[in-house]
This record gives sequence, C-alpha cells and structure tokens, in this order.
Amino acid sequence: MGMSRGATGSPGRPERGGVWGAISGPPILIGLDVGGTTIAAGAVTPDGEVLLDERVATRDAKAVGTPAAIEALVERVRAAVAARGLTVAGIGVGVPGPVDAEAGVVGDPAPHAPDLVDVPLAQRLAARFGIPAFVDNDVNALALGEWRFGAGRGARSLVVLAAGTGFGGGVILDGRLVRGVAGFGGEFGHAPVKFDGPPCWCGGRGCLAVYASGRGITEAARARVAREAGAALLQAAGGDAQRITAELVFRMATDGEPVAAAVVDEACRALGAMLATIVNGLNPEVVVVTGGVAGSLAALEKRILAAAAEHAFARALAATRITIVPGDKRLTMRGAAALVLYERARRAA
Amino acid sequence: MGMSRGATGSPGRPERGGVWGAISGPPILIGLDVGGTTIAAGAVTPDGEVLLDERVATRDAKAVGTPAAIEALVERVRAAVAARGLTVAGIGVGVPGPVDAEAGVVGDPAPHAPDLVDVPLAQRLAARFGIPAFVDNDVNALALGEWRFGAGRGARSLVVLAAGTGFGGGVILDGRLVRGVAGFGGEFGHAPVKFDGPPCWCGGRGCLAVYASGRGITEAARARVAREAGAALLQAAGGDAQRITAELVFRMATDGEPVAAAVVDEACRALGAMLATIVNGLNPEVVVVTGGVAGSLAALEKRILAAAAEHAFARALAATRITIVPGDKRLTMRGAAALVLYERARRAA
Repeated sequence: MGMSRGATGSPGRPERGGVWGAISGPPILIGLDVGGTTIAAGAVTPDGEVLLDERVATRDAKAVGTPAAIEALVERVRAAVAARGLTVAGIGVGVPGPVDAEAGVVGDPAPHAPDLVDVPLAQRLAARFGIPAFVDNDVNALALGEWRFGAGRGARSLVVLAAGTGFGGGVILDGRLVRGVAGFGGEFGHAPVKFDGPPCWCGGRGCLAVYASGRGITEAARARVAREAGAALLQAAGGDAQRITAELVFRMATDGEPVAAAVVDEACRALGAMLATIVNGLNPEVVVVTGGVAGSLAALEKRILAAAAEHAFARALAATRITIVPGDKRLTMRGAAALVLYERARRAA
Repeated sequence: MGMSRGATGSPGRPERGGVWGAISGPPILIGLDVGGTTIAAGAVTPDGEVLLDERVATRDAKAVGTPAAIEALVERVRAAVAARGLTVAGIGVGVPGPVDAEAGVVGDPAPHAPDLVDVPLAQRLAARFGIPAFVDNDVNALALGEWRFGAGRGARSLVVLAAGTGFGGGVILDGRLVRGVAGFGGEFGHAPVKFDGPPCWCGGRGCLAVYASGRGITEAARARVAREAGAALLQAAGGDAQRITAELVFRMATDGEPVAAAVVDEACRALGAMLATIVNGLNPEVVVVTGGVAGSLAALEKRILAAAAEHAFARALAATRITIVPGDKRLTMRGAAALVLYERARRAA
C-alpha cells in the first residue's frame, strides 16, 4: 500500500526493502515525541517495538534549547543502540502543532516548544547524525504508527483522534497521510461540534477540544463549580477549583457527582458527534481514539458510541471500526518511527 | 493526477489518450443526473461542455420504471450525438444516496428513485449500449466534474458541499475520490454542526442539512412561524405555512423580516461551522459550495466566510480557496462525464 517500493528487501519483509536495503545489521529507527511534560526518544524496531527510550523534561530541554536537547537525546539513544550492536537507520520526530513536513520545519505555534518554531529540525538532525530525519505533527506520526503497527494495521483508511491535554488528530486515506495544503490536516480537535458553543483557547468556538480534551474538561468543571456553590466535586478538590483535574472529574462522574457527570456527559456527546462527522464524511475503515484522556474514555465507550449513533448513518457507522486505545508515549515514538518508513517510501516513489 | 494513463492521445491532450485511444471520431460522454424533479442526460465534450441534453420528469420516469427511462434518455442523446456525426465513448450516472461505485449498483436509500435500489445500473447500461458505464453518488460525480473542469481544476484536493433540497458532499484528496468503506464518503451534509441540535429527517440530530438545505430552511421557517403568530413571512406566504419556500425565506431575510432573517442567520453560521470543520480537518486546496440553494447563498458569502473564520485556524482558512457556485444541472451532467474519465483511468492503473 504505497509503502512497498524497494526491491532489495529480504523475502520475509519485502515491504521494507527500500528503506533497509543499503543498511547493514538489524536496523533501528529513533522516534521522538515532543510532549508538554517530557520529550521522549525511543529506539524502535522495524516491527514497531520500542526497545528502549531516553527522556528529558520539556522544561529542562527549554533551558538548554529544545533543538540541542533533542540532539542530546538522539545521541544517547544511538549510543544505547550501538551498545547492543545495532545501527540506527533514521530519525522521526512528532511535534504538536502544524509542521512543514516536506521541508521538515516546525511551524507556528509549536505548543510546549516555542523555540522549535521555524527550526529546520529534519535537516539539522540529518546533518548531525548522517541519517535520514523527518518531522511531522505528533498526531500525524501517531496515525502512521497505528496504521503500520497498531489498531489500523492493514486498513486503507484511518482517522486518529488524540484527546490529551489538547486535542489533535490525524487522517490517512487510501494509504496517504492527509497533511492539508497549509499543514493543518487532521485538526478535528479544533473543529466545531456546536456552532454556537463556548469559546475555545484556539480562538474558535464550540470545538471538540472544549468538551473532550483534558484542558476542556478541566476548565468546564471549574466554570461549573464556580456557579454551583458546595458541589461535591469542589470539595473533593479541597475547595480549590484550580486543583480540579480531568482525572478527578472522570472519577467523580463515575461516583455520580452531578457536576462531574454533566461535564463527562457533554464530553461523550461531543466526541460521539465528531465520530459521526468522520464516519459520515470520510467513512474510514478505522477510527482510533487515543491520547492521555483515552484511558478514562475507554470506560465510557458504550456511551460514546451511542452518541455517535445518534448522528451517524447506521450502515456507515457499522462499517467503520472505532477503537479506544489508552494513550502511551510509546505510541507516538513508534509513530515517529513509522513516519521515517512512510516518508522514505513516499519520497522514493 | 492519476488520470493520465494512456499513451495514444493526441499531443494536445495527452491526458485523455487512454480513454480515447480506441475511439474513432471526436468522442462524447453521456452524463446523467438523477434528480428529484428531473432526470437529465447530457452529451458532454472532453472539455466538459454540455452540447445538448435530454430530460424526463422523475415522476414520469418512475411510471415506466426509472432504469428503462434512463435507457430511453441515453438512447435519445446517443441519436442526437450521432446526428452530429459524433460517437459516444462512455456513460456516467450520478444518483443521490449511497452507491456501490465499484460494482455500479445503486444503494439504499435512493431518494427520488427507489426503483433504482439494488439495480446493477452500470452493467445494464454497458450491456445495452456496448460502451463503458459507471455509476456513483451524484455529488461525488459533481466533485469529479469541479475537479476536472470547474472551480477545482488543477487542485490536488477539493471538497464539494451541495446544498439543494437535501445536502450532499464529495471529497477528493490527493487526486482520489473518497468514497468510504461503505460508500458514505462525503456526506458532510449529514454531519452534526450542533451535537444537541434538532432532529434531522436522516435520523440524526443537528446535521448541517437541518440548517442549510432547502428542506431544512423551509422546515425551520415553518416551525418558527407556527410559534410566532403574525410573522410577515407567513403573510408573504398567503397565511399558509406550507407555501413557505427556501427561496421566499432568503428573499424575506434580505428585506429584514425577522423570522426569515433568523433562519438565514443560522444557515450561514451552520455552513460556516462545517466549512471550518473541513478547513481544519482536511485543509483542502478548494471547497466548492454549490447546489440549488447556492444561488441564494452566494449573496451571503461574506457572512458565511465570517462564520467560518469564527471557527477555523486563520492560516488554514487563508490557504483554502472557498467558492460558491450556483447550482446547475449541467454541473452534475459534466460531473457524471468526469466520472467516466476518472474510473477509466483508475481501473486501468
């Protein structure tokens, strides 16, 4: 599916021949995830297994400069890989926000790492380490990883919705990543589920992120307790609304606390509506809901799918497989590795 | 983009060689639009010009059986083409609702033409006329036409939103039509713009169609005048809410009639929200808003784009060209002709 271009692969893995043909020894890819708390670099096998990883706090990285911190991480992973007698064949980086993936340049805004904006990161890493390097939006990379190694393996079309602190997305249709003409492809987290809904921090209004991201859930709960004196949710946060977290909201909702339950109910309905938009509008084979909040969403799967069924054509919904996969940094790391495989094949075509 | 496969074309039109190579004389395609009022069959040149067309009332077609009526129309167009000394190289049909385009079989439901459901129309026409025939959703065909001949000419990605009595859509990304795993691709008209919005006739809730299709606008206006005794809109309809049409609503809104203005305002906001969903989520080069209602929407372009700007990322929106093209049966006829070219190339690949 668009990825098999090489003619030199071993018989067992013909599809990787183009990438691995010129490399001696079992090849490893380094996949990086630039997150809000941690920047992680993993050594990823051709099967998507993360052998080991190295991490640095995003804050600490900023202190030395994020590009330099990324280089140091790659160096450490490469050394660890070399110590196992393996070689590194390429580097992939997933960064939040828009990225000029063709040029490998980080766009504006780059949440968590403003000092990456306009940095030609791919070129810099390739020059420093002498191997191919590619950069893309983190959820685009995650989508490539799910498509090649994960819940979307073997599918021709896949949409990823990543509910973390913010809300990202990635779209693969007919074996091709949909990056969009200005690099915004996949940003369904900032598409409206309610055209007259409340403002979003992105400048929009009624975005999915307002209802179903960690930040959106937290802010909605804080706003509600400010209006409802004596809410048990507020008491559970020690009377300090600023201590309300999305995790607490999900937990209290499970216990039937009314404010938390209302916020979680809206999260399920909003997410269901966006699933329906994707199912009716793109009708992909697979939709993967993941990200830091997905662990909590997994327990609500039936309600979310019921909300989707309120909006989607029944046969379209039945044909699309929807999976909730709790977020894990390894998913993005292996996704960044999948980005290397995808780009090598695409550019060779 | 994926359409140039032949090697036998004349130098001036190399991209059509594969289709035309074996045909003698200037070739014509027959493109059919199966609409709610009229079924139209056009003789379309390789440049997308509709030379002539033949029509039958959909009601009359049903009386003799829609498949037979379609065959009769094709026969008439073929005779007219032959009378000009030209030959017909292929037949394309656009039908509302889901279609199994691979098999050329009309799906369920087929609005306006229930007797087409499960009919292997492509096979039937090909056998009867001895030339290739293809069937797809009417707005998918329209999208192919806009991409090949119209507002999306030369673009790699295009989304069509067709606001008629109902609301359809079509998506072309990276030169490929997005049909979806169950044939629902492009149905953004029945994607929610308000997750807690009013019920839609599709069984969903808060769909774009509820706000911005001819039927949605008409029903919304009728519901509002039922609540607001003495509305000038009702008076303009002779006191009979059933005589309110979308056209009347748009006209009265221009005159400042409050009920009509409120309905049109929601139409603009809902359409703007969906444009933002498409701009942020897919970020295509071009979006074409068309269909029977688009003539009225064209005068509201600034308001619709302002509504989109309330939701979309500014740079994503700036990169996507949004055009409102008043609907015209010829657009679907030339689209159905473009379907023939697209499918011939795709299947030859």
